[in-house]
Amino acid sequence: MKPFDTIWTNARLATMAEGQPGLGIIENACIAAKDGRIAFVGAISDLPANADAAERIDCGGRWITPGLVDCHTHLVYGGHRANEFAMRLEGATYEEISRAGGGIASSMTSTRAASEAQLVASGLKRLDHLIAEGVTTVEIKSGYGLDKDTEIRCLKAARQLGHARDVGVVTSFLAAHAMPPEAKGDKDAYIDGVIRDTLLAVAALKLADAVDAFCEGIAFSPEQTARLFDAAKTYGLPVKLHADQLSNLHGAKLAADYGALSADHLEHTDEDGVIALTKAGTVAVVLPGAYYTLRETQAPPIALFRKHGTHLALATDSNPGTSPLTSLLLTMNMGATLFRMTVDECLNGVTREGARALGKLHEIGTLEVGKFCDLAIWEIETPAELVYRVGFNPLHARVRHGRTTFTH
Amino acid sequence: MKPFDTIWTNARLATMAEGQPGLGIIENACIAAKDGRIAFVGAISDLPANADAAERIDCGGRWITPGLVDCHTHLVYGGHRANEFAMRLEGATYEEISRAGGGIASSMTSTRAASEAQLVASGLKRLDHLIAEGVTTVEIKSGYGLDKDTEIRCLKAARQLGHARDVGVVTSFLAAHAMPPEAKGDKDAYIDGVIRDTLLAVAALKLADAVDAFCEGIAFSPEQTARLFDAAKTYGLPVKLHADQLSNLHGAKLAADYGALSADHLEHTDEDGVIALTKAGTVAVVLPGAYYTLRETQAPPIALFRKHGTHLALATDSNPGTSPLTSLLLTMNMGATLFRMTVDECLNGVTREGARALGKLHEIGTLEVGKFCDLAIWEIETPAELVYRVGFNPLHARVRHGRTTFTH
Ligand SMILES: [Zn+2]
Ligand SMILES: [Zn+2]
Repeated sequence: MKPFDTIWTNARLATMAEGQPGLGIIENACIAAKDGRIAFVGAISDLPANADAAERIDCGGRWITPGLVDCHTHLVYGGHRANEFAMRLEGATYEEISRAGGGIASSMTSTRAASEAQLVASGLKRLDHLIAEGVTTVEIKSGYGLDKDTEIRCLKAARQLGHARDVGVVTSFLAAHAMPPEAKGDKDAYIDGVIRDTLLAVAALKLADAVDAFCEGIAFSPEQTARLFDAAKTYGLPVKLHADQLSNLHGAKLAADYGALSADHLEHTDEDGVIALTKAGTVAVVLPGAYYTLRETQAPPIALFRKHGTHLALATDSNPGTSPLTSLLLTMNMGATLFRMTVDECLNGVTREGARALGKLHEIGTLEVGKFCDLAIWEIETPAELVYRVGFNPLHARVRHGRTTFTH
Repeated sequence: MKPFDTIWTNARLATMAEGQPGLGIIENACIAAKDGRIAFVGAISDLPANADAAERIDCGGRWITPGLVDCHTHLVYGGHRANEFAMRLEGATYEEISRAGGGIASSMTSTRAASEAQLVASGLKRLDHLIAEGVTTVEIKSGYGLDKDTEIRCLKAARQLGHARDVGVVTSFLAAHAMPPEAKGDKDAYIDGVIRDTLLAVAALKLADAVDAFCEGIAFSPEQTARLFDAAKTYGLPVKLHADQLSNLHGAKLAADYGALSADHLEHTDEDGVIALTKAGTVAVVLPGAYYTLRETQAPPIALFRKHGTHLALATDSNPGTSPLTSLLLTMNMGATLFRMTVDECLNGVTREGARALGKLHEIGTLEVGKFCDLAIWEIETPAELVYRVGFNPLHARVRHGRTTFTH
């Protein structure tokens, strides 16, 4: 038997493996890596007697989960919107803030003014906070450039973030996020330009792993979204959608019709939409950070997801306006507290289901032989603590592709 | 002119000094320490030409605030309540959880079973999280022992935490937190025992800096609270009160009548209560972590506090049941998001007003000459960022009594 590179022993595993009840827990367990992938996972007593390893790490009974996956972020942007946040608390209306150059236009202006290096530098601070909580894969969208050059620069910056740190970065092209001022309100023409020009370039440069859109009254219609998705198909790019956040435009159904990887937000999705998602295998990604920040009152239909067995993921939606959130642990607490998701739903939602929402479940998201050895090792007594605590980080060590990248 | 020990120069200060507008901001500023206290604070141009220092730290334009003050915590307890949290999300009722030994009784049992060293060790993890966010003073209550020996052990553990780390610890005696099972529901007799026996010992041992109580239908009546406060007075101990959290028992008025340092929670306080607090100079301490965790809908009367000019502080209420929160930065964001406090109110609330709520405003809480040189140095562009971001920690360095205890 060839020796392993590393064995983590004396651990308790929450494997998140599908088909297992709950979290797929294995007590008195160990996990072994070879060439960056998981080569053994199971009870210590099941480890072959002749198993050898270059390195053997005693976990002292600590818990190991898959490295966390944040499957919906807008980490790359210029500036911040703290002053606008302060103004709103002083009583300024959205209109006043908009007239003062605030809102998404403010982020667009700062993003257009930023170089790729500046976008990487500011994104790194946010990424490092996620990494410090055991995140090993993060999705990053464009969508604050809203012109060809800047959208491309943002996607390049996102790819750079994956080189600057030991983290997997999956990108989404989100030019259909909002209308830039130069489009003068002609949404059809803007979408046409995105398809004809920017998407073409992004696909040619292989900068996007998926195409995303914001389907909403204040953004783009289902018909415009469908046009963009048709174009994405011609490039072989999978799609995902910001759907039904503020109203029910049947975005979930639309996403399902296109076999989307995920439909995200979903506060206003009805049962037909839930059924469509379930049948399509499209992951429902809920984003409590935006719900919290916007002080919304209609939560996504968690009970319907549960009833129909919809795949359910949780993500930060980290962005400068509606969710300036950089903690996936806190996101789990919000999923439980605000959406009444169970502990198991939250933990599966930031591991296995997050991976599925990125089309990466074959590589990451559970502790199973053959997948990348991405681990989060926790100083806790029970996995429920990861959801229960608010503003606390019990990460003991983080492992990516078999290498320990951080330890307390 | 005698040399300073340290000068922090090239900084931007939010002094929080009273009588200044907003945050008392000084740009192009420096601050100097001598023997652990602030010896100079002001514009660089106002620094005497012959000012000298053993150490000179260039802050590179970073912001400095007073070290943060968390003026209401229950950091010392045994165990945790993560499993109960999980059960509740699975649909268990409070009654089922109570029958399974959950609720405050669970924390009492774990706390009674813990040694002083164990209480210190578990408290340290939570304290370290606060410290990593720039907290330099923390209040810690007893109240999970509910018998003489354990209450005393908890207060000793709290004092020990102040020796284990470079942090100021202020203790409150909170035996009047809940009823222990052996008291068999006789609240009057329990309060009598607390006064006659435990308070006497705690005062003699100088283990408490204040006496606190939980005045509520499910806890102790205003009359029982008043009896305890009368006894506290005979020992020269100031009082504070968990008041009007779940219903209006006129706890704010009661606290004001006793010249309490603070009245805390206050969700159900009416305008008469607000006026009484204001006249008495009692600080209103609001605790959004508990409001969030309990999914309450009635926020404390912030507009009334603003109207009457009540002193207003913010704290974590860190505790195992209703607020397992260990982030004072997140507490500010919750104060803004959930209670609509302004950025200035939040920042003053975790510095100057937190200090006032502990009776320590003469020593800490603002950047003014003569006070302890407790500083938090931040990697931010504007102080509003400290409130706006959710689950992010931009602390660059922390200084206590003139010594840098931490730097990035
Ligand atoms: Zn989004
Ligand atoms: Zn409390």
